[in-house]
Amino acid sequence: MEFSLIDRIRERTAQGRDDVRLGIGDDAALLTVPAGQELAVAIDTLVEGVHFPIGTASADIGWKALAVNLSDLAAMGATPAWALLALSLPKAEPAFIDELATGFAQLARAYRLALVGGDTTRGALTLSVAVHGFVPPGKALLRAGAQVGDVVFVTGTLGDAAAGLALLQRGGNADARSAYLIERLNRPTPRVAAGLALRGHAHACIDVSDGLLADLGHICTSSQVAAEIEVSLLPRSSALLDLFDDATSRQFALSGGDDYELCFTVPAQHVADVQADLARLGCGATRIGRIVEGSGVRVRDADGQWLEPEHRGWDHFGV
Amino acid sequence: MEFSLIDRIRERTAQGRDDVRLGIGDDAALLTVPAGQELAVAIDTLVEGVHFPIGTASADIGWKALAVNLSDLAAMGATPAWALLALSLPKAEPAFIDELATGFAQLARAYRLALVGGDTTRGALTLSVAVHGFVPPGKALLRAGAQVGDVVFVTGTLGDAAAGLALLQRGGNADARSAYLIERLNRPTPRVAAGLALRGHAHACIDVSDGLLADLGHICTSSQVAAEIEVSLLPRSSALLDLFDDATSRQFALSGGDDYELCFTVPAQHVADVQADLARLGCGATRIGRIVEGSGVRVRDADGQWLEPEHRGWDHFGV
Repeated sequence: MEFSLIDRIRERTAQGRDDVRLGIGDDAALLTVPAGQELAVAIDTLVEGVHFPIGTASADIGWKALAVNLSDLAAMGATPAWALLALSLPKAEPAFIDELATGFAQLARAYRLALVGGDTTRGALTLSVAVHGFVPPGKALLRAGAQVGDVVFVTGTLGDAAAGLALLQRGGNADARSAYLIERLNRPTPRVAAGLALRGHAHACIDVSDGLLADLGHICTSSQVAAEIEVSLLPRSSALLDLFDDATSRQFALSGGDDYELCFTVPAQHVADVQADLARLGCGATRIGRIVEGSGVRVRDADGQWLEPEHRGWDHFGV
Repeated sequence: MEFSLIDRIRERTAQGRDDVRLGIGDDAALLTVPAGQELAVAIDTLVEGVHFPIGTASADIGWKALAVNLSDLAAMGATPAWALLALSLPKAEPAFIDELATGFAQLARAYRLALVGGDTTRGALTLSVAVHGFVPPGKALLRAGAQVGDVVFVTGTLGDAAAGLALLQRGGNADARSAYLIERLNRPTPRVAAGLALRGHAHACIDVSDGLLADLGHICTSSQVAAEIEVSLLPRSSALLDLFDDATSRQFALSGGDDYELCFTVPAQHVADVQADLARLGCGATRIGRIVEGSGVRVRDADGQWLEPEHRGWDHFGV
């Protein structure tokens, strides 16, 4: 079983990286990190029914398992290089495995990422991916660099993935706006190019996996500062605004998880550069608030009133 | 949930490695590979009921999850450095998590290995560990270097883990010999020092995880050679020989899995050096056969007859 999945992915992904001295097929891979680069390493697991709904297409599962990990590299400003995949699945269905390999490889190819190791075991459907990327020493984007006076930004739009999940839970819809939101849940786009563009500009960065309030809260805790954000500034897609009422879409944007956008802070003198750079990359970046003294994240509505959000984070399907 | 397990392991393992620029707590760890070293990377998963029996003590589970991965580094001749741990478990029981962290950390400390990333999710009990080690360029032990005329060796003793599993399945025994064999199943010793000592001596090396015949078969396939081994030479522990009849213990030694000894081939002129080096390390190494032209593994009994083994490998609990 092991070799069919791993080989299927390998044959569809980068073969010609000269930093892979020995790929899959021995007890370990042998790799070389480019001289003068640090290695960024992260691992994340997706469990069926916890991190993706039962019934998710296997190609989407393969894509998402890699995407959430590339998002961690993006949040560090690292260039993706290699991945390891540990898959448990209840039984070896060739079509399921083939589609999963296809989804994983589609995203991997976009970054010339090589799969350098894997393990397939029998068990409940679970994917753990470890990713490795490169970053010049001292250039990584950390959570712990936000400073009072920084402007808080977020890439893309927020709340789409939570909306997609809500649509799936109520039975789905066939229209284009629903499809867009569900695609945002199932096929998140890791903001790798944005992360690279932010090196040298952003003081702090994190990816929005658990919801804006929770993840911006991590920046505040690590940086020993507070953040004030304006709910009227939160970037929401037209699909989200069309299909959900204002209060619901606002809640999704504040606390929904799985968007995998980047939230980052920038000193005032770099704001124009950052906005121009990210606009060129296509995802854009929206200014949503600022860093102040204190602790925690405060949210102000359009009338200038402080809100007490009902939910401060997102707990994967309520588990 | 995530931080309690990962933090418990971290606080019990190596803190002072200067190749860990940024440890757990951000989106990724930042690491530096020593100049002039290649990075060896592997990942392996343990699933409850597949790779360890239901009811295994959680400290043993933590130990074994790391041990099977360090065994992969040992088989490459790599020096362990860092690990990532992805754990799924059905519910967060503090005592279970604490013991699991203890078992993992006990083994990690022996190698000054740092835990640099982790992820804890809810799901069936599953542990994926990714390990990273260093090896000088060109010095790694591969499967694909065996040459006709090489002597085939194995470290330690074979068949103990399969015997331990058989004892557990029949309800266990309280005597010291049973305890020894069950310990060999639950707390395998990765042969890291032996792997390092074999650099520059062994032509090919693999760890015995799926059984001698299967794993030596991988060396033969990769090296395009055959192996002939003498069943009378297979190293068997006195506990194994005392508690099982000759045919059973032989079968365990040929086809039992989970021993995590190293099987390797050595040219004639290095045999004396290798035996002396491994004897000094305490695990010893036993000459069990030789590499010849052809393909596959052939087994000869004490009378010089060729055997047709009933099982050519070991399929984790028959799953």
